[in-house]
Amino acid sequence: MENNAVIENMLNRKSIRRYTDEIPSDDVIHTIVRAGQQAPFATQNYSVLLSRKKRQPFGAPLLFTICVDLHKIELIMKRRNWKPVSNDLISLIFGIQDATLMAENMVMAAESLGLGSCFLGAAMYKAAKIAQQYRLPKRVFPLVQLAMGYPAENPPPRPRYPLDFVLFEDVYPDLSDEMVARAMSQMDEGYLEQDYYRRGKIIIPLELEREETFDYENYSWTEHISRKWGLWHRSTEELMDQLEQCGFNIGVDRE
Amino acid sequence: MENNAVIENMLNRKSIRRYTDEIPSDDVIHTIVRAGQQAPFATQNYSVLLSRKKRQPFGAPLLFTICVDLHKIELIMKRRNWKPVSNDLISLIFGIQDATLMAENMVMAAESLGLGSCFLGAAMYKAAKIAQQYRLPKRVFPLVQLAMGYPAENPPPRPRYPLDFVLFEDVYPDLSDEMVARAMSQMDEGYLEQDYYRRGKIIIPLELEREETFDYENYSWTEHISRKWGLWHRSTEELMDQLEQCGFNIGVDRE
Repeated sequence: MENNAVIENMLNRKSIRRYTDEIPSDDVIHTIVRAGQQAPFATQNYSVLLSRKKRQPFGAPLLFTICVDLHKIELIMKRRNWKPVSNDLISLIFGIQDATLMAENMVMAAESLGLGSCFLGAAMYKAAKIAQQYRLPKRVFPLVQLAMGYPAENPPPRPRYPLDFVLFEDVYPDLSDEMVARAMSQMDEGYLEQDYYRRGKIIIPLELEREETFDYENYSWTEHISRKWGLWHRSTEELMDQLEQCGFNIGVDRE
Repeated sequence: MENNAVIENMLNRKSIRRYTDEIPSDDVIHTIVRAGQQAPFATQNYSVLLSRKKRQPFGAPLLFTICVDLHKIELIMKRRNWKPVSNDLISLIFGIQDATLMAENMVMAAESLGLGSCFLGAAMYKAAKIAQQYRLPKRVFPLVQLAMGYPAENPPPRPRYPLDFVLFEDVYPDLSDEMVARAMSQMDEGYLEQDYYRRGKIIIPLELEREETFDYENYSWTEHISRKWGLWHRSTEELMDQLEQCGFNIGVDRE
């Protein structure tokens, strides 16, 4: 495998959930955001909110909220005498990509400057509340949050699928039982070796009809992730409601 | 501003639309994908398709198609005796984030190894065709494509919004006419200086009722982007149809 400072920086990344009290300087913060800005955006339809108020998640000194932002481009279009006609579904999908490109660059830039971070994917379920807190105009949708600061822990990078479960040439293969089992065991054994769920005291509780047969000896990534997608978010209403409160109507055609 | 190899690599990124004939080695390709894999995914719900067939867009030797992939996790859940219940809207939104994190890491890893790339955002409009070509199972949705290879051009990095149009602390500001005008002129003057639209011979044609008043002397980023969002994709049907053909039903609750 090839190697250099950029690759090394990527391979070493892990989520950080304990931070020192050191406050990142304005210069460091601006560098992280500025570096993020050169990502290959479709439209720069994102905004980054920063809070340095005390007691962010995991005790981090910084909390960034990265939003899909149609408000800015619509102000620009108005000055250009254009009316937006694209439907909100497509605007949202491109906007999520813009916001995520930005977030990932910020993660990598931060890492390179000795900071750590942790993605908080639940922002979109409390989008309306965040919108109120930061006084967001309509057409701005908080997508993800990023806790950030100098790390007070140094966990190992987390397991990932085998490369041949991720990269396919020319044809998507018929994934055999054996390939799936091998990907699962790489994830599960990797997380068990790191004692990840025991240390984090994380087991997603089952619903009444299903009996618990796992403990920290065998509860690992594939069981954890299966519970997420097997228990949560049956209804689209929760998210549609958050989107609508932020002024996004993704089911509707434009005139 | 702080600086190091990672930051420098980000600030230098630009889309490459001309490539040499040099073929990237398997080692380089695997390094790029492997480095991408350590991004902060929600679930690793992505797959990367590679084509090395001749004549990719822009004459690039490599074409990656980065997909949202629910097929793999659903195979895993089956082996864990779990039935997926989360609605497809939320699965899609998290999957888009996973795929985009992967894509951006691949872009940065490639750049660090001397390769260039260009995002092709239109993949999702021909998702069903791509699915056929790569024989994708249902529940895999091609999101973006990435042309990649060794650059045969070295354009400057492209203009971006001013930092104070992107990063907001505590409160989203009331964006004054002056702030919007300044952001617009930084974008427009930057692109005009680089002669971007003239070199690329890019002007989005107007519809009949509106008279063309622009030429390469004044056609620039904000006019170009305004035309995109002011002319294209009125109806959600086009994209909904592609999603449905790939087995995604984002408007539907699960039982």
